[in-house]
Amino acid sequence: MDATPAPEHPAPGADRRHFLKAGVALGAALAAAGARPSVGQSQPAAEDPSKVLGGPVRPYGARSRFERAARVAIGKTDEVAVGNRTPLGESVGIITPSSLHFEVHRGGVPDIDPRKHRLLIHGIVDRPVILTMDEIKRLPAVSRILFLECQGNSQREWRAPGGKTVQITHGLTSCSEWTGVPLSLLLREVGVRVGAAWVIADGADGSGNERSLPMAKAMDDVLVAYGQNGEALRPENGYPLRLIVPGWTGNISVKYLRRIKVVDRPYLTRMDGVGQPVLMPDGKARLLNFVMEAKSVITFPSGGQRLAGPGFYEIRGLAWSGRGLVRRVEVSTDGGRTWRAAGLQEPILPYAHTRFRLDWQWDGREAVLQSRCTDETGYVQPTLAALIKVRGLHSHYFNNAIQSWKVAADGSVHNVHV
Amino acid sequence: MDATPAPEHPAPGADRRHFLKAGVALGAALAAAGARPSVGQSQPAAEDPSKVLGGPVRPYGARSRFERAARVAIGKTDEVAVGNRTPLGESVGIITPSSLHFEVHRGGVPDIDPRKHRLLIHGIVDRPVILTMDEIKRLPAVSRILFLECQGNSQREWRAPGGKTVQITHGLTSCSEWTGVPLSLLLREVGVRVGAAWVIADGADGSGNERSLPMAKAMDDVLVAYGQNGEALRPENGYPLRLIVPGWTGNISVKYLRRIKVVDRPYLTRMDGVGQPVLMPDGKARLLNFVMEAKSVITFPSGGQRLAGPGFYEIRGLAWSGRGLVRRVEVSTDGGRTWRAAGLQEPILPYAHTRFRLDWQWDGREAVLQSRCTDETGYVQPTLAALIKVRGLHSHYFNNAIQSWKVAADGSVHNVHV
Repeated sequence: MDATPAPEHPAPGADRRHFLKAGVALGAALAAAGARPSVGQSQPAAEDPSKVLGGPVRPYGARSRFERAARVAIGKTDEVAVGNRTPLGESVGIITPSSLHFEVHRGGVPDIDPRKHRLLIHGIVDRPVILTMDEIKRLPAVSRILFLECQGNSQREWRAPGGKTVQITHGLTSCSEWTGVPLSLLLREVGVRVGAAWVIADGADGSGNERSLPMAKAMDDVLVAYGQNGEALRPENGYPLRLIVPGWTGNISVKYLRRIKVVDRPYLTRMDGVGQPVLMPDGKARLLNFVMEAKSVITFPSGGQRLAGPGFYEIRGLAWSGRGLVRRVEVSTDGGRTWRAAGLQEPILPYAHTRFRLDWQWDGREAVLQSRCTDETGYVQPTLAALIKVRGLHSHYFNNAIQSWKVAADGSVHNVHV
Repeated sequence: MDATPAPEHPAPGADRRHFLKAGVALGAALAAAGARPSVGQSQPAAEDPSKVLGGPVRPYGARSRFERAARVAIGKTDEVAVGNRTPLGESVGIITPSSLHFEVHRGGVPDIDPRKHRLLIHGIVDRPVILTMDEIKRLPAVSRILFLECQGNSQREWRAPGGKTVQITHGLTSCSEWTGVPLSLLLREVGVRVGAAWVIADGADGSGNERSLPMAKAMDDVLVAYGQNGEALRPENGYPLRLIVPGWTGNISVKYLRRIKVVDRPYLTRMDGVGQPVLMPDGKARLLNFVMEAKSVITFPSGGQRLAGPGFYEIRGLAWSGRGLVRRVEVSTDGGRTWRAAGLQEPILPYAHTRFRLDWQWDGREAVLQSRCTDETGYVQPTLAALIKVRGLHSHYFNNAIQSWKVAADGSVHNVHV
């Protein structure tokens, strides 16, 4: 290869072939333990990798030692962090790697043996049943690419700019290909009786995340999922079984699912909103909040990133709607005075992240970047002012307002309210 | 929770809270090193996980300690395995986890520092260029869900049943969401001159995988990709940069891409087929083979699996075509005498794995399961006999024949030729 100079010094390590021998012998064991190859992070890579023998293959791969994208903890309650946020600023495409999917916990990440896990379905039904994982996996399955967003996403942005980066402001949304059994199929199997109108779902972890779900949704498109991005759910995301409720607030997609009780009315559990109310301006609390309305955010350029200088950039972001398809995303580079239609990456899927892109020539002057999503119902993502007008200043959940990023003349990008 | 008895003995470990304290303190360091939580594989899970505090969150997640799906090595050349195969028998949905994507190497897995990596584009062009990774990532990007299949997939099935499982027979195909820059954009930037008709691509690893690609395809839908399933490419799959050539044989999607040379004709490199010819019945060799024709395989029930007994099963599999969309998949349970149309999971995407499903009541008698894919061109996946009639007995690459799985009366499943 004539473009790359031949290495002027041998590859690092006195005897790389010796390392490789050890690597092959230990390969399976190391990979099974989730360990990294024995090339240390501080060791430089070969000057010309084509001149040295590479490393061994592994049964279960890991990312490059040079990649550092990581979830950032939400905060800590006693000894256990409550959860963490997806690094949206480094995201590409629409799939979130399972290793970087956001997570929220109230009892830590449970360690569940799938051979012992059971799902009970009972209540106002003809034939209550207890199912093993094997029995569930044998049933007709569905796979769908769907976002999950926590209702607390962007909650600190309500009154003033809160997070410095898009990971902090919007990192409680992620998108995976989920595989599982339609809940409607299970409910038909057990025979829902007259008078049944809701189901209560709860999980096998210590969080007490019981949720009431109306029967119409339960019979529509809810999944009892065991697969995520082509393999088993990750422990943080509900292993071995969870609900997936398309388009609705994340905590109703109950993780570690062990029970579905068919009932006549919502139970108004703590997680139904009694303990986490949506406060309205008149002092009342709105409970049983479900749908994540249309929302979008620019992931590049976004807070904490820096543009190298004037010139061409592709503005990139994600849009989604709990009502179905994203129909349109518009981008402003002047704080909302003028808007241009962004390109939407195919496939555009209902209840999934949709990647949008727009070419931008930055002239080097201060700019305020915004994105605005319109969904298939015609609903348009609101400004924060419009949201506050309806919901008041004491709300914080379900903040789907337009986000603003200020690009300063030095190329630095900041979270601002305009 | 009234369905699950309270634990009759405390959670394992004399002082679980002590573990959790250590876990929080060490959490970031452990996750950064890719290590597992300190719950050993042999330690039982809590009888009722809702009664104990769970583990800490991690910046970069790992799968459950109870999950064991793994790639299986293809074979070993000297000290380094040539590659490994995706466990299709355990696959769900259409996305292959990056950790389980198949890989083929001829010089091991290189360790490449992305800050030092460069892409040279030269040859019959007006403005040759050397690009850094940062420069490439700044350009307009595209994300697509696309399969990659090695032309050697199923090669040992040509004359007699070779592999015992679908991982061995068909595990050299996988499907990811790839993100990168259109090669056409880069070629327009450098200004392809009159007389240019092909490009030669090669990589920075030690494999010598140079490939000739016709200009028409290069200007059509080829990606210069840096993203896989929402994050950087994995080292095994081309980190930090590779070609993705939709629908064509895997080795033309050159990994570790460092050079594109615009030329007037194919170079007939070893990897263009000179060293790996497709042998025809007349003794001639067919070189420059590109398209992966329509193919499908049943992943459940498949070789090595066992049905628990007569009753309901969902037959599941994957279909794909290097010509674009899968239009139809038919399934036979009687060795090809009768066929039923399988359901195709949405979204059905061009050049992507398509998941098919068919309900099946197994009566407990011997059955031979087959699937047959038809693509949007009307091409129908052939029987092995039809393939041999054209290609003879000395071929082995590009085997897209219908696969047969025999379900024995005891529920065991076997690879057979019928």
